[in-house]
Amino acid sequence: MSEPQIPQPPSHMSAEEFREYGYAVVDWVANYLAHADEFPVVSTVAPGDIAAMLSDTAPEHGEPFADLLSDLDDVVMPGITHWQSPNWFAYFPANTSGPSILAELASAGLGVQGMLWATSPAATEIESKVLDWLVDLMDLPQQWKSTGRGGGVIQMSASDSTHSMLVIARDRKKADSGIEDMVVYASNQAHSSVEKGTRVAGIGHVRLIDVDSNWAMDPDALRVAVEVDIAAGLHPIAVVSVVGTTGTTAVDPIGSIADIAAEFGLWHHVDAAYAGNAMVCSEFRHHIAGVDRVDSYTFNPHKWMMVNFDCNVLWVADRKPLIETLSILPAYLKNEATESGAVIDYRDWHVPLGRRFRALKLWWVIRSYGAEGLRMLIRHHVALASDLANRIGADDRFELFAPHPFGLVCFTHRDGNEATRSLAQALNNSGRVAVTPSELGGVTFIRLTIGQTRTEQAHVDALWDLMDDLS
Amino acid sequence: MSEPQIPQPPSHMSAEEFREYGYAVVDWVANYLAHADEFPVVSTVAPGDIAAMLSDTAPEHGEPFADLLSDLDDVVMPGITHWQSPNWFAYFPANTSGPSILAELASAGLGVQGMLWATSPAATEIESKVLDWLVDLMDLPQQWKSTGRGGGVIQMSASDSTHSMLVIARDRKKADSGIEDMVVYASNQAHSSVEKGTRVAGIGHVRLIDVDSNWAMDPDALRVAVEVDIAAGLHPIAVVSVVGTTGTTAVDPIGSIADIAAEFGLWHHVDAAYAGNAMVCSEFRHHIAGVDRVDSYTFNPHKWMMVNFDCNVLWVADRKPLIETLSILPAYLKNEATESGAVIDYRDWHVPLGRRFRALKLWWVIRSYGAEGLRMLIRHHVALASDLANRIGADDRFELFAPHPFGLVCFTHRDGNEATRSLAQALNNSGRVAVTPSELGGVTFIRLTIGQTRTEQAHVDALWDLMDDLS
Repeated sequence: MSEPQIPQPPSHMSAEEFREYGYAVVDWVANYLAHADEFPVVSTVAPGDIAAMLSDTAPEHGEPFADLLSDLDDVVMPGITHWQSPNWFAYFPANTSGPSILAELASAGLGVQGMLWATSPAATEIESKVLDWLVDLMDLPQQWKSTGRGGGVIQMSASDSTHSMLVIARDRKKADSGIEDMVVYASNQAHSSVEKGTRVAGIGHVRLIDVDSNWAMDPDALRVAVEVDIAAGLHPIAVVSVVGTTGTTAVDPIGSIADIAAEFGLWHHVDAAYAGNAMVCSEFRHHIAGVDRVDSYTFNPHKWMMVNFDCNVLWVADRKPLIETLSILPAYLKNEATESGAVIDYRDWHVPLGRRFRALKLWWVIRSYGAEGLRMLIRHHVALASDLANRIGADDRFELFAPHPFGLVCFTHRDGNEATRSLAQALNNSGRVAVTPSELGGVTFIRLTIGQTRTEQAHVDALWDLMDDLS
Repeated sequence: MSEPQIPQPPSHMSAEEFREYGYAVVDWVANYLAHADEFPVVSTVAPGDIAAMLSDTAPEHGEPFADLLSDLDDVVMPGITHWQSPNWFAYFPANTSGPSILAELASAGLGVQGMLWATSPAATEIESKVLDWLVDLMDLPQQWKSTGRGGGVIQMSASDSTHSMLVIARDRKKADSGIEDMVVYASNQAHSSVEKGTRVAGIGHVRLIDVDSNWAMDPDALRVAVEVDIAAGLHPIAVVSVVGTTGTTAVDPIGSIADIAAEFGLWHHVDAAYAGNAMVCSEFRHHIAGVDRVDSYTFNPHKWMMVNFDCNVLWVADRKPLIETLSILPAYLKNEATESGAVIDYRDWHVPLGRRFRALKLWWVIRSYGAEGLRMLIRHHVALASDLANRIGADDRFELFAPHPFGLVCFTHRDGNEATRSLAQALNNSGRVAVTPSELGGVTFIRLTIGQTRTEQAHVDALWDLMDDLS
């Protein structure tokens, strides 16, 4: 039934073209990763430099793929700050790895939308199974498995997970209290996502609790704050413990906080975004003692498990309140599998409806490296960090600023804040490394994270030599 | 400085291995897309079938890449429902295309985290520029450009955008009203994300307003609802207009709703998730008359612009309230560029902190197809939909259920709900197409969306023949 009035579709990439261009992009990425250490780590462009290289209007006609590829080098690369350089010591790392990158390619090719079990059962079932694997790999509570009362879900970021847990904590208590009278607690070292999540959830108050000399939450201060708030007629609803704070990787005492959470009926959420990855190794698990009594727990494989952003894992000990708050079922999403109750529909586990097949990269990374490989990465980096910390501690010019339980080393220059700031600037301006200057209690310090997938001894040695030269 | 006590790192994929495996995945994807039409569109596995093929524990040692690749065929494919089949007529489409897939590969390889301008200026500046391109391509208000008072940002999904706009609307009014007394309005045909976003934001009430005979919001009913709520002491804060509802692609009258929003001081958000893509063609822009007076507007290039999920665009007419609500600046994120005020830090434009370099795929798709190609896709699909609707309307067995302004055709079987339901089931069980059965006002109907990237005349003809056979 030919219909001459139907306008022509656009011309799509043929399978042959996709192969040719695909090989070219694979080559480009392979070459980039093999030489990522040669780029100035921090982009030196000024605001507007990249934009100035782009035309002000979209092209009317399609451009050849070769132009896109050459613009990767000419337009994009000058504006890239190289998170994948092994000389990356800034923030927390955003890992990637070969199997993860190729899983993203396969996932984009499959192009499924895993909002419901029915819209691609493999996306849901692989996700549940792999998150169950991680429960065992990290010796987390069995109840968190998909076969238990709880369950795990991949979200975009720890900010999203923390926000959604605060929403659940809020709704659990809304029969008892106005939202504006509710209070959330976290240490004054907790990630800004706690404050942001509280604000976004509309919860009235967030209390940032004092820390001890190791920057870990003081549970006595937490108890006092809760009691003061209750006496003032407010309604404590949740506490967030952090395992590995962003500032210094301090570890809040989960067990003591769990006692207080139980006593006052608080939702207890654990943000282990970065340090949670280390729990594949048994020697770090004392840091999460008491985790069997928390309500929810989040960590980011995209930080230190060689899975590229975004891949955040959230577990809840009981999935019921989560689903009660986040489930809405319009007619066009009704289907037999959902109605049977035999499947998980992950759309009910987070704010967005749509979701990519992100479990594929987590599955491929764990299978490619094996549990053994995940542990090797952590142990290698922690040992390098410990070694670097020893060198820093033994040097008259520097002083360690905080304990270094994982892969982050924090230190100051003994000549004071200005000297520390200058050193950070000199390190970043050298183009040879990226570090993060920060500040706590009036003291400027430098954060050095050892955790980029390919960071090894030689890179840390070069960092040390550079610190030595520039100090 | 050799340190014999440092444990070995895991063995990573070499550049040569990455090339070899990368080519293999490119071949796999090329082959998949070339033959996507040959798979049963809807996966037929039962709950648990895929999980049963996975081991119960993670492997201790790494597995060869060849095993991952073969499991794509053996484990993953049986559990895939083929959104990329040109025989996909279900839900709204989740597009992908060659340039988009390859941009995801490049983006995963670069592995940058674009939370701040400084953490990869190219990611931010390309995003701003390309969203400015779209403002011109769609003749949207110039004020929405990054050079105006407003601006655009890529979020994960329209659900996220709608939720964040409700949060802004809420916080703008919190000096005047308790959150529990606030009210959000949308038509009873609006996407479930409005109800979910309201609930997640903690806002007390959502009113689903009556629609006219075309399933579009009745502005008189909106006005009455607002007045009733005010008289009852409640506080209307926001209204969501939908351009292209999920049920039937009905179009709410933005202009009339904008009048009411202005009169009562409501934040006016437009959800054009699917149909917004059509605005690259001038002949559809009458559907958004009045858009120059709205506060925010969202659409999904991942639905009908050949960009794969996730890629949601949100524009605001004024970026100030957005940034005021969502910006938090801890010490470790402070940097010169942010302090200069000369750059955009997109972390302040949404709930999560981290963000992938999603602008790359939007940039590559627009450049590959050109503005012309984007328009051709829309016009081709809308013409196919119109042609199909004509065939349905002319057939004694069927009846059109709603207008078809875009690429969605809704129809019923004249023999009633049971016949319609049976037809939907027969179509989906055939393995040859995917369609979505839905229900409105007690009437069961079938939704047929024509919008998958590669859907062309032959696929629609085959769908029609199948409908003919099965009815």
